[in-house]
Amino acid sequence: MLESQLHLKTQKELPRDETSVNASLLIRAGFIEKLTAGVYNFLPLGLRVLNNIESIIREEMIQMKGEEILMASLHPKKNWQITKRWQQFNALFKTKSRFGQEYALGPTHEEVVTPLAQRLISSYRDLPLYLFQIQTKFRDEPRPKSGLLRGKEFIMKDLYSFHQNEKDLDEYYEKMKKSYQRIFKKCGLDAVITEASGGTFSRLSHEFQVLNPEGEDLIYYCSHCGFARNKEIAQSLKKCPQCSTPLQQKRGIEVGNIFKLKDKYSHPFGLKFLDKDGKEQNVLMGCYGIGVSRLVGVIPEVHHDEKGMIWPETIAPYLIHLLYLKTGQNDQDKKTKEQADRLYQMMQKKNRSVLYDDRENISNGEKLVEADLIGLPYRVIMSAKTLKNKMVEFKERKKKKAEMISERDFDKILKSK
Amino acid sequence: MLESQLHLKTQKELPRDETSVNASLLIRAGFIEKLTAGVYNFLPLGLRVLNNIESIIREEMIQMKGEEILMASLHPKKNWQITKRWQQFNALFKTKSRFGQEYALGPTHEEVVTPLAQRLISSYRDLPLYLFQIQTKFRDEPRPKSGLLRGKEFIMKDLYSFHQNEKDLDEYYEKMKKSYQRIFKKCGLDAVITEASGGTFSRLSHEFQVLNPEGEDLIYYCSHCGFARNKEIAQSLKKCPQCSTPLQQKRGIEVGNIFKLKDKYSHPFGLKFLDKDGKEQNVLMGCYGIGVSRLVGVIPEVHHDEKGMIWPETIAPYLIHLLYLKTGQNDQDKKTKEQADRLYQMMQKKNRSVLYDDRENISNGEKLVEADLIGLPYRVIMSAKTLKNKMVEFKERKKKKAEMISERDFDKILKSK
Repeated sequence: MLESQLHLKTQKELPRDETSVNASLLIRAGFIEKLTAGVYNFLPLGLRVLNNIESIIREEMIQMKGEEILMASLHPKKNWQITKRWQQFNALFKTKSRFGQEYALGPTHEEVVTPLAQRLISSYRDLPLYLFQIQTKFRDEPRPKSGLLRGKEFIMKDLYSFHQNEKDLDEYYEKMKKSYQRIFKKCGLDAVITEASGGTFSRLSHEFQVLNPEGEDLIYYCSHCGFARNKEIAQSLKKCPQCSTPLQQKRGIEVGNIFKLKDKYSHPFGLKFLDKDGKEQNVLMGCYGIGVSRLVGVIPEVHHDEKGMIWPETIAPYLIHLLYLKTGQNDQDKKTKEQADRLYQMMQKKNRSVLYDDRENISNGEKLVEADLIGLPYRVIMSAKTLKNKMVEFKERKKKKAEMISERDFDKILKSK
Repeated sequence: MLESQLHLKTQKELPRDETSVNASLLIRAGFIEKLTAGVYNFLPLGLRVLNNIESIIREEMIQMKGEEILMASLHPKKNWQITKRWQQFNALFKTKSRFGQEYALGPTHEEVVTPLAQRLISSYRDLPLYLFQIQTKFRDEPRPKSGLLRGKEFIMKDLYSFHQNEKDLDEYYEKMKKSYQRIFKKCGLDAVITEASGGTFSRLSHEFQVLNPEGEDLIYYCSHCGFARNKEIAQSLKKCPQCSTPLQQKRGIEVGNIFKLKDKYSHPFGLKFLDKDGKEQNVLMGCYGIGVSRLVGVIPEVHHDEKGMIWPETIAPYLIHLLYLKTGQNDQDKKTKEQADRLYQMMQKKNRSVLYDDRENISNGEKLVEADLIGLPYRVIMSAKTLKNKMVEFKERKKKKAEMISERDFDKILKSK
């Protein structure tokens, strides 16, 4: 992508009420724009990050035998009355048609997926069933101030599983724990599996917490065996119940959660199946969420330095940032530009993911500052210095130093990516 | 995809109030589910169709230099007050936070994209700019009864263009007409460019109308030169203004529309740019919409027969439907199944898009009826009849007759796709 054709505008000023690190970085770098408190627009680079995260999650969910669907956001009031959550779900946005119908704006989809599953399930032969979607959710959160970490509108992956019995639910639940760990690892995050409240119908649920001082959650964490429990359900825990090591208190950002719903929703909606003996039984359910747009915030919240973001290769909007720098001497600059253009075309031909800062009316200093802020994993600089001997200046964003290497060596590095 | 693993349930009964051909076919074939009037869930096959349409549109929009973004659905009241549409847009869904803020649920995005563009545009050097998204819209339509043709919640592609002057806007507008015709053609649709109301600020807008008796719009149409004008703006037009041929009255389904907004939105939001002489001028805008989820309905509305849908190759959820049929003789059935399995694996290896009806507990008759209803472009049947001589029974969905061909010839046909 030619940066001269990408209407990317980095900015120095921030919305006054934007205090979070992630929103500050993402807005300044032109990845997102704040529309109003807790509501953001994704600009081209931000959308590419979102799409990369979605692809990682989608691939894993398909591995987990999930069938992808897309459910609506306008939920009939009736469905939310059946579960009593029309009144009880505090953060529910509601809207009313001029013709009288009332709707909830889906903050989660149990009220829609359960009756949907009813059409697909009649006998034990139809189980297990795994349905997932990647879709926009609405929650009327109080004072959202954490950028993409907590929004009134956000994108979530939600998978719902349907089972014959607890054993089958338990097995899938454990597999999903591993799948989630693979997902977060691919996103460049270490997530700690944390015991959390199971509500009234399950002993425990599990959250995936990224330890970070910006986190909203307080958790007890064992640095020895990795045990973690949300403070919500563990008022004063001193030693690890698994290995007796003294526990630490840490802050965490929740990036995913999994829940055994059992018959909490299948019961009110009458979602039953005929078992092998022809007896009618409640279907048992699990639900498994990941905050997809939240991850767009969590990753730079964790991976940044004083100069800007540092994107993992798997997530970065582009892999390579190619910069053309000027000296002010027209002749030489023309040659440098030609060399940079040629390198860009070569990378295009080889299908490399590259953003090429070919702009003429921007100073070298601004280009370098912007490149640090945007934080693509690899940077290649073409300048008067590199013009001789067909060298390129190569730098990994996460490392301090650049190195001068031959084009051939550069090509080798690219090939390994 | 193995049909035994896809939780596809076709159904004979329909929601009582569902009278449209498209919803009837799509619901019966298990592509979509009706949640409530004008609101649908996309099931796996329906989502694949939606994704195929999105890909065709996205590719064209990128060709048209569109930069993809994703704007939010919760729009602050203030933005809609600036354009006076908070009161004037009848179909606007509104919602209110428990903390007091009021929002419109975006039915279109001029109120969001115009201030967004303000951040990206300061001088003539930043123009033209083309921003597009594929995103969910909300409109409180009266009595939605046409299935996916008119929904309260639907997916739209909206592109907004920003220009220095009318000449530039006009040129892009004409290019977009051609781009839209390419899109609809790729979707298997003939769309007629139809003159429609330009509102108070433009002489005309243009709609893309698919001529069909189910259409809501009445248009005057010239079968000789292709001229078309919406009856809304042409109370009694008898002869074609271009070639004097007597006009016909036709019904049309609107699948896209393009509009020269000029400064209708840039003016109230103060979206200006500095021209080459350093003078401040209003940016001129155009907008270009396609009903993406509506197309999921329009295509089977146009392409079906008494047995079911007939998907164009570009749009079909899978290209080939492989069916394994039984005789009831276990030995022979086992061999047929082996042959079908082998063919499926071969196709998988070659990366063909195939749905394999490998189910054992469904009768041959049901399989054939379902395959007609689902309407994939090509069908391959493996049965006792085909077992000898390594033949396969091959049928194009849109043709009446099947033919017995060798596996080698079948492979050749596949290769050409």
